[in-house]
Amino acid sequence: MQRTTLAAIAAAATLCLAACAPMGTGKSQGATAQQEVNRQTVLAFYEKGLNQKDADAALQYVGNRYVQHNPTAADGPEGFRKFVGFLREKFPKSHSDIKRSFVDGDYVILHVNAVREPGTRGNAIVDIFKLENGKIVEHWDVVQPVPETAANGNTMF
Amino acid sequence: MQRTTLAAIAAAATLCLAACAPMGTGKSQGATAQQEVNRQTVLAFYEKGLNQKDADAALQYVGNRYVQHNPTAADGPEGFRKFVGFLREKFPKSHSDIKRSFVDGDYVILHVNAVREPGTRGNAIVDIFKLENGKIVEHWDVVQPVPETAANGNTMF
Repeated sequence: MQRTTLAAIAAAATLCLAACAPMGTGKSQGATAQQEVNRQTVLAFYEKGLNQKDADAALQYVGNRYVQHNPTAADGPEGFRKFVGFLREKFPKSHSDIKRSFVDGDYVILHVNAVREPGTRGNAIVDIFKLENGKIVEHWDVVQPVPETAANGNTMF
Repeated sequence: MQRTTLAAIAAAATLCLAACAPMGTGKSQGATAQQEVNRQTVLAFYEKGLNQKDADAALQYVGNRYVQHNPTAADGPEGFRKFVGFLREKFPKSHSDIKRSFVDGDYVILHVNAVREPGTRGNAIVDIFKLENGKIVEHWDVVQPVPETAANGNTMF
């Protein structure tokens, strides 16, 4: 019994230490294995949907609902499909460059430079995704055009 | 020696389990004790600076630099002090309502509804703060006016 307990403690400690890898390697300090799976799910969803503009491929990562908080997009998976169709038709060369990603609990957060026309400054975006059982079920974002000039030399990213 | 090792493993496991509390209580799944301290630091900085408009009190939470990525604000602590002075003079009743917060590694992320004139819709903002040694050293944000109408009924928050 004591051996089992010690083994369980050692396993938990190993899990914790493994999850405490520093930023930069794709893992975050304190992130659990499920959180890292969630991050990869959102990154794949974003790449398939926003860059490859393949809504069907992206929607494989979406759960039984897709609650949309972006005020310009209709609710649900069909709203996302329409948005991807819009990008494909109007901005086929648009590209979203993910500058950094974060995970916390059931949430994955992306800080993105989304450029609709190559060579333009594009938008700064933060996307927040909520996941349940490893699938995306809700999305919020905030979108701001990157201005031509700034009061500091640090860029928006 | 073995006892010391086992004690260290048990302590690490306890830390991990303690940090795995579910969302909603202010703690996040997988967040370490330092990450929770960082969250409270950023929440206090935001309340003192943006709501109470007391730059000196807020800057107690800032480290030896404040790298500013908001394109409308000057770099450094003095840039933040100027911004707080601007709010105090032009929008003394402005209020920032923090809708949700996240922690990951050295970062704290806030999703905010910032209202400059009471009764208006205000802006949706995501702020990203980087901390070092428990102090804020870098800030990014994305700001978008909350529109009057939306293509879904979910609000931006």
